[in-house]
Amino acid sequence: MLFALQHRGQESAGIVWTEGGAHKVDRRLGMVSGAADAWLSGTAASTGGIGHVRYSTAGGGGIRNAQPLAVECSKGSVALAHNGNISNSAALRAALTREGAIFQSSSDSELILHLISRSRARGIEAILRDALAPLEGAYSLCMLWGDTLAAVRDPWGFRPLHIAEKDGVRYVASETCALHALGPSISQREILPGEVVLVDEDGERSFFLPPAPRRARCVFELIYFARPDSRVFGESVHAARERFGEALAERDDVEADLVVPVPDSGNLAALGYARRAGIPFEFGITRNHYAGRSFILPTRAEREFAVRMKLHPVPEIVGGRRVVLVDDSLVRGTTSRLIVGLLKEAGAREVHLRLSAPELTGPCGYGIDIPDRSELISNRMNPGQIARHVGADTVRFLTTDLLKSRLAEPSEYCYACFDGDYPCPIRNGEGKDATCP
Amino acid sequence: MLFALQHRGQESAGIVWTEGGAHKVDRRLGMVSGAADAWLSGTAASTGGIGHVRYSTAGGGGIRNAQPLAVECSKGSVALAHNGNISNSAALRAALTREGAIFQSSSDSELILHLISRSRARGIEAILRDALAPLEGAYSLCMLWGDTLAAVRDPWGFRPLHIAEKDGVRYVASETCALHALGPSISQREILPGEVVLVDEDGERSFFLPPAPRRARCVFELIYFARPDSRVFGESVHAARERFGEALAERDDVEADLVVPVPDSGNLAALGYARRAGIPFEFGITRNHYAGRSFILPTRAEREFAVRMKLHPVPEIVGGRRVVLVDDSLVRGTTSRLIVGLLKEAGAREVHLRLSAPELTGPCGYGIDIPDRSELISNRMNPGQIARHVGADTVRFLTTDLLKSRLAEPSEYCYACFDGDYPCPIRNGEGKDATCP
Amino acid sequence: MLFALQHRGQESAGIVWTEGGAHKVDRRLGMVSGAADAWLSGTAASTGGIGHVRYSTAGGGGIRNAQPLAVECSKGSVALAHNGNISNSAALRAALTREGAIFQSSSDSELILHLISRSRARGIEAILRDALAPLEGAYSLCMLWGDTLAAVRDPWGFRPLHIAEKDGVRYVASETCALHALGPSISQREILPGEVVLVDEDGERSFFLPPAPRRARCVFELIYFARPDSRVFGESVHAARERFGEALAERDDVEADLVVPVPDSGNLAALGYARRAGIPFEFGITRNHYAGRSFILPTRAEREFAVRMKLHPVPEIVGGRRVVLVDDSLVRGTTSRLIVGLLKEAGAREVHLRLSAPELTGPCGYGIDIPDRSELISNRMNPGQIARHVGADTVRFLTTDLLKSRLAEPSEYCYACFDGDYPCPIRNGEGKDATCP
Amino acid sequence: MLFALQHRGQESAGIVWTEGGAHKVDRRLGMVSGAADAWLSGTAASTGGIGHVRYSTAGGGGIRNAQPLAVECSKGSVALAHNGNISNSAALRAALTREGAIFQSSSDSELILHLISRSRARGIEAILRDALAPLEGAYSLCMLWGDTLAAVRDPWGFRPLHIAEKDGVRYVASETCALHALGPSISQREILPGEVVLVDEDGERSFFLPPAPRRARCVFELIYFARPDSRVFGESVHAARERFGEALAERDDVEADLVVPVPDSGNLAALGYARRAGIPFEFGITRNHYAGRSFILPTRAEREFAVRMKLHPVPEIVGGRRVVLVDDSLVRGTTSRLIVGLLKEAGAREVHLRLSAPELTGPCGYGIDIPDRSELISNRMNPGQIARHVGADTVRFLTTDLLKSRLAEPSEYCYACFDGDYPCPIRNGEGKDATCP
Repeated sequence: MLFALQHRGQESAGIVWTEGGAHKVDRRLGMVSGAADAWLSGTAASTGGIGHVRYSTAGGGGIRNAQPLAVECSKGSVALAHNGNISNSAALRAALTREGAIFQSSSDSELILHLISRSRARGIEAILRDALAPLEGAYSLCMLWGDTLAAVRDPWGFRPLHIAEKDGVRYVASETCALHALGPSISQREILPGEVVLVDEDGERSFFLPPAPRRARCVFELIYFARPDSRVFGESVHAARERFGEALAERDDVEADLVVPVPDSGNLAALGYARRAGIPFEFGITRNHYAGRSFILPTRAEREFAVRMKLHPVPEIVGGRRVVLVDDSLVRGTTSRLIVGLLKEAGAREVHLRLSAPELTGPCGYGIDIPDRSELISNRMNPGQIARHVGADTVRFLTTDLLKSRLAEPSEYCYACFDGDYPCPIRNGEGKDATCP
Repeated sequence: MLFALQHRGQESAGIVWTEGGAHKVDRRLGMVSGAADAWLSGTAASTGGIGHVRYSTAGGGGIRNAQPLAVECSKGSVALAHNGNISNSAALRAALTREGAIFQSSSDSELILHLISRSRARGIEAILRDALAPLEGAYSLCMLWGDTLAAVRDPWGFRPLHIAEKDGVRYVASETCALHALGPSISQREILPGEVVLVDEDGERSFFLPPAPRRARCVFELIYFARPDSRVFGESVHAARERFGEALAERDDVEADLVVPVPDSGNLAALGYARRAGIPFEFGITRNHYAGRSFILPTRAEREFAVRMKLHPVPEIVGGRRVVLVDDSLVRGTTSRLIVGLLKEAGAREVHLRLSAPELTGPCGYGIDIPDRSELISNRMNPGQIARHVGADTVRFLTTDLLKSRLAEPSEYCYACFDGDYPCPIRNGEGKDATCP
Repeated sequence: MLFALQHRGQESAGIVWTEGGAHKVDRRLGMVSGAADAWLSGTAASTGGIGHVRYSTAGGGGIRNAQPLAVECSKGSVALAHNGNISNSAALRAALTREGAIFQSSSDSELILHLISRSRARGIEAILRDALAPLEGAYSLCMLWGDTLAAVRDPWGFRPLHIAEKDGVRYVASETCALHALGPSISQREILPGEVVLVDEDGERSFFLPPAPRRARCVFELIYFARPDSRVFGESVHAARERFGEALAERDDVEADLVVPVPDSGNLAALGYARRAGIPFEFGITRNHYAGRSFILPTRAEREFAVRMKLHPVPEIVGGRRVVLVDDSLVRGTTSRLIVGLLKEAGAREVHLRLSAPELTGPCGYGIDIPDRSELISNRMNPGQIARHVGADTVRFLTTDLLKSRLAEPSEYCYACFDGDYPCPIRNGEGKDATCP
Repeated sequence: MLFALQHRGQESAGIVWTEGGAHKVDRRLGMVSGAADAWLSGTAASTGGIGHVRYSTAGGGGIRNAQPLAVECSKGSVALAHNGNISNSAALRAALTREGAIFQSSSDSELILHLISRSRARGIEAILRDALAPLEGAYSLCMLWGDTLAAVRDPWGFRPLHIAEKDGVRYVASETCALHALGPSISQREILPGEVVLVDEDGERSFFLPPAPRRARCVFELIYFARPDSRVFGESVHAARERFGEALAERDDVEADLVVPVPDSGNLAALGYARRAGIPFEFGITRNHYAGRSFILPTRAEREFAVRMKLHPVPEIVGGRRVVLVDDSLVRGTTSRLIVGLLKEAGAREVHLRLSAPELTGPCGYGIDIPDRSELISNRMNPGQIARHVGADTVRFLTTDLLKSRLAEPSEYCYACFDGDYPCPIRNGEGKDATCP
């Protein structure tokens, strides 16, 4: 399952499992494949386990911040895997520190364990109600609590979380693609915003945390983050991306010969765009899948070289043609500038850059790694200026209205990185720009 | 350049370069990225070098067989990188051995160096004419001969070879994609069958080996092996694959809702097929690019698991639909059977498997790794039987005639693995099945 | 300095240093040499740092327990390196857990940080007085407290600790050998039992914790643990070991031809023995310094093989001779049995085993890794039985009285593992046998 | 066995063994322990094998030169492990090259395989007589010739070679310490100069190569290279080194308080010296066995640091004393200078350096790695000058006459590096200084 979720984090991978009545921990820097042989060779019987792949947002990386966290405390052995960011973590951390708590990581996940340990309540349900009450922001949690598995989705519903059952065993994962890995005969459902699922020897039971003022599913999961074969928030990611591409074409009147995706991030939106616009879809750029984070390339010239090693326009396809280039979103514009340059170099007559997301204007604060405002190109330039900057003939973004028009329940989503309407104030002390205006 | 050719061999990578008047060698198991940091950190001045990525065909793998080979001999320091297989290697090796030659590898490339060393001729041109005369089969060679670079393409022209010039420096590579890596302002041309190019301080000069009875470009380079953004044999690989897909659709009358490629091998043929057949193209299968040769999965059940980890049908796309599944070729049928199963499991109503190559019936012998006859499914079953075996509703192959109809110069190609017409007898002693009937 | 202390712990190595106003941490499994290149390549300015080499006693190993520990807490950034074992850790840990503390390691060192974080006192001195008050047992500490270095030696004085100054910089280390590594012109002194030294921009100052009921320097540091070129507890380790060997000879009347040390643990005692007894000293056993923990040798037969790979009697020296074999102590008797066997096999006529320590009868509890009572051979056999068990002709131990007679201040030492007189009750919950009778 | 011979070469280690009728090869850079787990985990049946540890003399290092060499040739599969240096290799290599031989390594061992492959003789015995006839210099060989093991010692007898038998299996090794590793009940003998032993299914048989003009056992094996628990050339290495130390004391009248060895190279000579001179032996310098080639220390200051990390004078022992410091030999004087400095720094009143070998004045050429003449301190300074250079009060060497007086058969040895009387002219082209005067 972790392997199927590798796209959600490549910096570290870890598991905690029960063995002989205790929790065992194995956390490593690097990807799941680097650890899997060791993990799969274990033969001890285990009643349950949790795992995590981490991708460090502002809180910092390193083995120190690898998850799952595992502690001994007043509630016994408790391990935690956390997806999302707590938006009021700075205040909570300060309060806990004043009371004598010590923090061994710089991640906001550790404070959840402190809240649990300090709770005076009795019984898992009461303790979780008590401990999670002060939290604001995004937290999809998997916890191993002695032998009990606890899965929690925050009341806003920022990040997806699913549960499945097969042959009497329960499986919890962020995306359904991880559950597909278990094979065909599996029944699954979304864990709902605010729902807490407890799984133990007696089976599965649920209760709900108090509701949040609003729902705030992360629309970026659909645009970019989740894997296309997953369903998240009740939507097919694949189908949603095609619809975003269609919407992008709907108000576009550019004349062009080809629609070419940036591989593989723009594949599905490009296909939707091409279909709606009636322009042929073409694989005009080849991607070298052997390219990874292999080379140490510090300077700008070498970063350009890295893109050149990975993406290869096909001159016979794009030469002399007017190309609509489709990608999912535009952050700093650096890579797009390189790709547009490669296309022109390969002979493209015109390049029209189209993005299947609106203009990014703010950081996330709930778990998506978006750079500071000052680095976001859409904070500094309008589309015409961006076109000149990246060397494209035109640049167009999907509008927020069109994006919403392609969602079944548009009011349930968070669009804060596009429109600045943050569901929870961002006060997590992670970077100058993180305070919500 | 080696990095751009990684798809041609992942088992070992090596370079030989001149430094301080001598040849330096660095060969390693594994991919280019594992060696590149060390290679790029070298700072010594060098007048030239050659490199190789190896993918072990029947001759055997290991560091022992990694290339380039580098020797000291009567002709001084000579290093060799060889692409292809010598089809009369067994006889040549036996003759050399009788005369006292010793072999330190099991590859057929080493015998070329012995022939060079034993030649009584004087001057590189005369020595190469003399030494290469007894060779039959495929040999695109890059040699570093003291300070001189020699590039050779066998008279049959089995494997591609190209040369480019930029800022007074010459570059030789199997595929043009490696030359694109050098940047835009580069002029390049194919090295012709039988051509030998020598590059030294005085520039570049050419001569030709005696012609072969026929030309024999490997059609599998276009179908499967070369990278889509390359030109080989004067053809755009990308365009050729689309044309093979179109040809496949031309005589097909299947009724279907979607055309889905096996990612990424079937992408271009599927696009051509979809366009010609008027059926929508869809990315119905997601590929997990993090899947590599990560896991040690010895048993059959676990190999099935490996495919399940890598390829993910999208239920929302294929569910209830009649799917044309396009791949480039069918070897043993094992993987196709798993993919068809995954599609049906995801709800596909019908699956029609289409291959953009004819039925494989024999080994190659000139450098493509095709298993023994007995393992090739088309030697044991007709398309109807194959369909039942892999679980598809129908299976169709491109015919050799249609394949030829999409090539500019069809008579210049080798189709031996499809039609058994071997341009050179296969007598290289590599496996029971290798002798040509 | 860590490298010079490698003999005190080979399982993990770590450092914490100040950089840009924060604490940086690097902890790794394995020895210092595996980390040193990375550590030495850092170039950032730092005002101070601490380091640790760990050897896991009963508390358990793994990266989780590697030190220094580094936390953020109410006292800011605090890092801790701990040598010794807290003998009342179980009770302290239980009390802290009841109050909501969470533990991320299984080592007893973590609780010291909790006590510091929870203290209501103000100022480092008051906080340390408050936080360390409940501790019993052995704790030589180096702490990095923001920019301040704090070095603490427990009031019993179990473990050694030294401080030196050179060019205005202070250095603290368990043994003087680490200070010698800094070069000749260094002045050093012992940190006294109960002394706390604080070093900051204003220089060095000291205060003392309340005195313990008695002093309890670990005599095993002199017998076995410390490096011979160190001074600990005001004694030259080298000279002490020679004196123990002399004492051993004093009451011995065995007739023998040679005195042979078990290399290198018995070298100095053997030399002292030989000199006192007037019997020639000989290197009768060669040690292969390439032998390390190289082989995975699980079974008993293979463990025997491992000793055979490492220790090699010289037949020409021991053949036909009566050998006094000297080692520092006898734990389980397993290795001694193998060595005596090898000597007999090499032709020794008689082997008389002599140990420069008394009979081990109990665990330590203050930081030396001695197995459970049930595994200690002296709890099950008298010297005569041991001789038969290991195949020696006779076996003799140094008596506690003779041991004391060779120490300048015998009443200042702990001999609990020999005589059962434990200075602090052992209640750290680490193993059944750990409770002091 | 290889592990026991690790002191003879740490650069690379390799084995060749028979498996399924063919030779398998595994050669790796680094020490035996790095490869042993992989080697020991193999489970296939094998009828025989050979191994090698390499230490690169002038011929150059790298995986290219790792042994055993393994080739296919006119004599079938032949693998070779070679100890020693061929002194006429340059001429032989030139002649073979002229005839078309190719060389893939820069070691002189490869030419032995060419001579074997080119021989027109029939049968192993005749071929070996023919092929080895032109060789001059040092060659102890182990060959795997199909299923047959061939062990050869050159007629001069430069390097040691031994054979043993246990339970019907034959074992061949340079030193007897490798045979001891097989356990007690083993019978062994020296392979004689010029003897060739063949072992196959029918057992063991011997024949002799034509005798050399003289015998030339390498005296440096006894002084420094072989392991003390070995017998070589019929001598106990341990006993010989003690005798050299005694001889050194015999003509010495220095007044001193202590004899201190450079650990561990001077241990045995120091013991012999102390005994003969009636001065107490002391371990005045502690060696840190964790120090290895761990650090990358390029500059001179750092090299000094490396010695300081490894060797630690004990101030309590040497302080205020007059010390006789004993080592085996003096090459460049660099390390001795550092050690003498450390002793003085630790308070030694006088340091008298004594070497248990004569003054080194020339390179070896038969397999011991001695630097060029120009680097040998004894070519530039007399003992008085050396004393001033290294900071010692006096320096004395063993004389060649005294050295000879301690050998049973002094006329059978080579002393060329001391007296310039080379048994075979050195014409191997390895370095400017290598030609014998």
